[in-house]
Amino acid sequence: MTDAQKDALIARLTGNGEGMDSTARTALGEALETMVGHGASRFGLRADHTGGNDACRLAPPLARLIDHTVLKPETTEAQIRELCAEAREYCFASVCVSPVWVPVASEELSGHTPKVCTVVGFPHGAVRTPVKAFETEQAVRDGAEEIDMVIAIGRLKSEQYAEVEADIRAVVQAAGGRTVKVILETALLTDEEKVIACVLSQNAGADFVKTSTGFASGGASPQDVALMRRVVGAKMGVKASGGVRSAEDAYAMVEAGATRLGASAGVAILKGLTSDASY
Amino acid sequence: MTDAQKDALIARLTGNGEGMDSTARTALGEALETMVGHGASRFGLRADHTGGNDACRLAPPLARLIDHTVLKPETTEAQIRELCAEAREYCFASVCVSPVWVPVASEELSGHTPKVCTVVGFPHGAVRTPVKAFETEQAVRDGAEEIDMVIAIGRLKSEQYAEVEADIRAVVQAAGGRTVKVILETALLTDEEKVIACVLSQNAGADFVKTSTGFASGGASPQDVALMRRVVGAKMGVKASGGVRSAEDAYAMVEAGATRLGASAGVAILKGLTSDASY
Repeated sequence: MTDAQKDALIARLTGNGEGMDSTARTALGEALETMVGHGASRFGLRADHTGGNDACRLAPPLARLIDHTVLKPETTEAQIRELCAEAREYCFASVCVSPVWVPVASEELSGHTPKVCTVVGFPHGAVRTPVKAFETEQAVRDGAEEIDMVIAIGRLKSEQYAEVEADIRAVVQAAGGRTVKVILETALLTDEEKVIACVLSQNAGADFVKTSTGFASGGASPQDVALMRRVVGAKMGVKASGGVRSAEDAYAMVEAGATRLGASAGVAILKGLTSDASY
Repeated sequence: MTDAQKDALIARLTGNGEGMDSTARTALGEALETMVGHGASRFGLRADHTGGNDACRLAPPLARLIDHTVLKPETTEAQIRELCAEAREYCFASVCVSPVWVPVASEELSGHTPKVCTVVGFPHGAVRTPVKAFETEQAVRDGAEEIDMVIAIGRLKSEQYAEVEADIRAVVQAAGGRTVKVILETALLTDEEKVIACVLSQNAGADFVKTSTGFASGGASPQDVALMRRVVGAKMGVKASGGVRSAEDAYAMVEAGATRLGASAGVAILKGLTSDASY
């Protein structure tokens, strides 16, 4: 695909594609097909989602891939309410907030398209399995519809694979059918460990594997997304998160196989700007 | 106090003080008096501790102030066992490990002087109060004797002070009389917020206030330790953590009013070296 085709695809994904020429249109079609082939369950389903407001039927497809995220520990309630207002306006897939703010986000998004996503065992993954399960149950009670858990990184590196899988399974069970994404924290893993983590997540019944917390030394890379996609195949989602700051970044991740994007820069991405946010 | 006096004090604290002159000896006496005045409940109590092995009666006083700490998410079980072996050898106050490794540390330190310390709501403090309480109960069941919890930073910044205090109190209650330290994450707070956090921690019945997780942009400073000491008075402990890498650092924190030090560089500190560890 040429740069011009990529530009056109980005423009279309961000909702500005009226002037596309036929070559770009073909490229777009092919790229979308590839994405759907990658298991992009949300992609292109603008007319199919349920439980949201009609205005989101007109939203650009890219918006529907973004978990609009603020996880900094110093985040205030006012900032959470602002995040939710942006999510309503831009029709993001979800807001992703710390557990302490799930009740607030749930109140703000009731009756709206964006879901409430939260994190469990975040950001180190180093809490005990019963605690991760309890935290998941509490989040569900508070209104969370998606759970992004951190894998037991230290156990993975200690080759305690049965424990790692059981840890994920406990969260999947506590989530009671809600979407569970497993954060691998790829910056801390070898490629072999990334592959093992994907297999364990799949075995445990998780819905997505996700690259990063945004609090380690590095975030998502297209190489890691592609590796994770190859391992999990078409039936699981892959979420790219950490350092996704522009439409270019977003495009690269989707092309590599991502079906969801975690970003604090969602608004900038849709406006075609680049953010200096770290997540 | 002159530099020579400080050097002598450091040497004495690290167990190499045989050759001190009388001026240094006087300075040491005065400094120790100041520290005890600051509430250094563990300081100088080498002969009084119970439940440990006799060898620790000969340990340098500085060792008995240090929580020997490894909290990186990628830490393996083998590294935890090594940490515990060092704690036994150097007679540190405790090892401070992630909750996932408390059972291992508890097994390694059974019958030895160093205690098992772990963290709750770490490092963002952004989990719900019932989850912090449950996590504390689990840690106690696993063998933890000290709990370092992270304050609800976002609620503090949202001026939800009653909720912040209730959050701490829930952990104090769940800890059932075990030592609870409240991590303020000073790098993220204004001086006014630091003062408020100290007052709330005191009201809630915590035993210590602690500066830092080691995962924010900054760690302990003597200025913050002194501020916290002024607010909590002599009856609470103050733990300096984050960036304590040398005997000089340790000395500065104790002089400012710290009665406990969190460090991954405990061995280097006692050997008079400087570590490049970040905690």
